Amino acid sequence: MFSDTILLAHGSGGRMTHDLIGEVFHRHLGNSLLAAQDDAAVWVLSSPGPERIALTTDSYVVSPIFFPGGDIGRLAVCGTVNDLAMVGATPLYLTAGFILEEGLPRADLERVVASMAAAGRQAGVKIVAGDTKVVERGGADLMFITTAGVGEVPKGVCISGANVQPGDVAILSGPVGVHGLAVMSRREGLEFSFPLQSDCAPLNGLVSEMLKAGGPIHCLRDPTRGGLATTLNEIAGQSRVEIEIDEVCIPVSEEVRAACEMLGLDPLYVANEGKLVAFVAPDAERPVLEAMRRQRYGQQAAVIGRVTCAHPGRVVMKTLFGAHRILDMLTGEQLPRIC
Amino acid sequence: MFSDTILLAHGSGGRMTHDLIGEVFHRHLGNSLLAAQDDAAVWVLSSPGPERIALTTDSYVVSPIFFPGGDIGRLAVCGTVNDLAMVGATPLYLTAGFILEEGLPRADLERVVASMAAAGRQAGVKIVAGDTKVVERGGADLMFITTAGVGEVPKGVCISGANVQPGDVAILSGPVGVHGLAVMSRREGLEFSFPLQSDCAPLNGLVSEMLKAGGPIHCLRDPTRGGLATTLNEIAGQSRVEIEIDEVCIPVSEEVRAACEMLGLDPLYVANEGKLVAFVAPDAERPVLEAMRRQRYGQQAAVIGRVTCAHPGRVVMKTLFGAHRILDMLTGEQLPRIC
Repeated sequence: MFSDTILLAHGSGGRMTHDLIGEVFHRHLGNSLLAAQDDAAVWVLSSPGPERIALTTDSYVVSPIFFPGGDIGRLAVCGTVNDLAMVGATPLYLTAGFILEEGLPRADLERVVASMAAAGRQAGVKIVAGDTKVVERGGADLMFITTAGVGEVPKGVCISGANVQPGDVAILSGPVGVHGLAVMSRREGLEFSFPLQSDCAPLNGLVSEMLKAGGPIHCLRDPTRGGLATTLNEIAGQSRVEIEIDEVCIPVSEEVRAACEMLGLDPLYVANEGKLVAFVAPDAERPVLEAMRRQRYGQQAAVIGRVTCAHPGRVVMKTLFGAHRILDMLTGEQLPRIC
Repeated sequence: MFSDTILLAHGSGGRMTHDLIGEVFHRHLGNSLLAAQDDAAVWVLSSPGPERIALTTDSYVVSPIFFPGGDIGRLAVCGTVNDLAMVGATPLYLTAGFILEEGLPRADLERVVASMAAAGRQAGVKIVAGDTKVVERGGADLMFITTAGVGEVPKGVCISGANVQPGDVAILSGPVGVHGLAVMSRREGLEFSFPLQSDCAPLNGLVSEMLKAGGPIHCLRDPTRGGLATTLNEIAGQSRVEIEIDEVCIPVSEEVRAACEMLGLDPLYVANEGKLVAFVAPDAERPVLEAMRRQRYGQQAAVIGRVTCAHPGRVVMKTLFGAHRILDMLTGEQLPRIC
């Protein structure tokens, strides 16, 4: 039975689930591991085998599911790829759990799955296992996706939020705040006179080139929910260091600055999904920065600050006017459901 | 700020998210990998390294989230552990993505997370990465959990739904239909005069003993959504064989039989979460069956049928009255949201 909307029976585990898996998931995501159709995907490790494996997960509840520059599917693939890249791992395989609301147009599901497939191809990862549940109308909001991912950590790479050292340089890969504002503008029906497209992108290629640049990279993190300010606070806490950043050095596009002013938001607290902040030893600043700027997703990379041992756990920003202010973690909720 | 219900700000990625992670997730699930608080958990592979890794995921939307014999947390851990065990893998690490509805009592979340921790201890797995999103009231139904898991596949183990061969014996680990009916009875407020408790349990210990028994195990699968009948159809299709089962040999408890009669349900289509069906070479029947019966979750194991090459893809059941009928895959939706 073909239906152009998702029905409860698509989540039954029976005939209609099997049809949906074949017609939508295998058609777009098809690969030999997924095709095995066993309860788990099994792959042979590279030889000589890796020493370390990385594992991560994120759930995506973004509303609306389609927004300028991306959709929930692209976000779910890029987010999990990026979480793996942020520990220096080479992302390999992803899983995807779908929770669908009864009545979701089947065409929307197909569009999202096709977008996941495209993002997977861009990042060089395969989606090898999945699951679909359907809840009755009103039991969920159209579609939620939870992706998990595994990757191999190359020998010698040791990247963690706890590894930042006094003297380290903080490098940001590009302008912040775009993703959160792109989603919000679509949701609230705001029309700006300028384009605002999510920066949602896989960063594993960028990270791979940064690692090849040679100098030690101590920490990588992508400032998603809570924005750059929250991410810096997490790192300052984990590494017991002070991070001093310079407002004038933080790339923020004119469009984001204007939109934030209109909406009373601070771009440093707005979510991103295609940016990273790196902490590198002083010697590595130049080679890493140059490597980043040669990459599509690092062209506007900039040094934004340095690490000291003054007040462990604190983030201080030198403002445009030369004053210093403490930059705290996000409190409350600035923009719900942007990822 | 402490709140005894979940607020949107708990999903912001900021201060309240961090507090919730510490007070609920780390407190119950705490382990060194989770404590690293990086974007992905990284572990060192056993030495000598495994050749093969298994990866799986499932989303859980069971309603109600607490039911006789279990809850959504225990289900999420057992389900993913079992999916790994069904390819013969030794489950190691799990991830958990939580989607919470604003207003969920914090005590309910704690109870579920504590239950996940207990199930993890029972199965010998650690939850090493997680994520929490909060959607506004009415945007989800209390709580959804998506778990993913990785395990190592021991050398020499080759288990797949595609490996069943004519002559193989089908062994079921115990009575079917309990989980689905336990959830449904709680949801519909049905009071039976007999106890009906979900069989939700981790089966990796049972599988480990079955593998040690020696004979070749060709296929393992846990009949969850769609029940035993659907699972047998999946396997018959994957292996291009006919499976003949004998109704009189299928263990069904008196309670499940009575409840199914009252409700007009067929126990062969009702979901389980603590049972498995194994296909083994004829020589392995006795040692595997004996190994199963020595285990807590295999005490009532029974041979339920055999594999032939008569009509590839078909499942036939010899009924209690001696007739043969084709057992098809579940069509439509029998019991929504039982997992």
